[in-house]
Amino acid sequence: MKKTYVVEPIGVVRSSRNEVKDDHWGSETCAVELLPPFDERSLLGLDGFSHVEVIYLLDQATWDSEGVLRRPRGNPAWPEVGIFAQRAKDRPNRIGISVCRIREVDGIRIELEDLDAVAGTPVVDLKPWVAEFGPKSPTFQPRWMSELMEDYW
Amino acid sequence: MKKTYVVEPIGVVRSSRNEVKDDHWGSETCAVELLPPFDERSLLGLDGFSHVEVIYLLDQATWDSEGVLRRPRGNPAWPEVGIFAQRAKDRPNRIGISVCRIREVDGIRIELEDLDAVAGTPVVDLKPWVAEFGPKSPTFQPRWMSELMEDYW
Repeated sequence: MKKTYVVEPIGVVRSSRNEVKDDHWGSETCAVELLPPFDERSLLGLDGFSHVEVIYLLDQATWDSEGVLRRPRGNPAWPEVGIFAQRAKDRPNRIGISVCRIREVDGIRIELEDLDAVAGTPVVDLKPWVAEFGPKSPTFQPRWMSELMEDYW
Repeated sequence: MKKTYVVEPIGVVRSSRNEVKDDHWGSETCAVELLPPFDERSLLGLDGFSHVEVIYLLDQATWDSEGVLRRPRGNPAWPEVGIFAQRAKDRPNRIGISVCRIREVDGIRIELEDLDAVAGTPVVDLKPWVAEFGPKSPTFQPRWMSELMEDYW
């Protein structure tokens, strides 16, 4: 039997968006607040970075093995692709990652831009954005993905 | 009591590096192989992307609340920073993320560049790199982090 791992929230998403929707995330007001036992010491120095990666659990998403191969958003204009070739929220382990600009670190709260997760979403890690951990060579992506992203933010 | 979440490996790291070390990851040969029930259908279309984010569990790392505030690598030349202002592997939930160039998708195996995880590390998600999910404004980071990264790859 496969070994499993338990993860525990270290924080929670605060957001002006309470309902799961696909697009127009850019206009929301959003933050992450730490949960006990984590306190402001765990954020010391984060304000020296421009961006942070927020890793969270999409607790309202569901995973069904039928979804292993599907058209993104069910759009017939786009190809059927595997679940690991798309970023759909209904996926194994339901992990979400967003790269957010840091507006302010205030105690146990980080005010952010561009966090595409709804209010109450459990946060399981925060990692400062480090240029050397980004792509180290030119990037490309299929046209369908660029089309999908047109209204996302 | 805080709700917890169970995550299950969807794949495993194959790497020429078997031992945990800090630096010089760039020269290693590395891949991810899917585990059952996942098969090649879940990777369909991934070869249309240049890079993939590999999300894994640092199963040889440990977390101790004493580590909430520490000097990266214990280096006295660098400041004490919170665990969420650094990317040290000994962290809550022990989640690691690498952005890797895709060399080849071959059946259930993805040949990669720049995967900084040792052989056998459990993989819990794969997400294609999408430009619009990267930083959307200019980035900066503290000098200590740039110094730390000098020998990393």
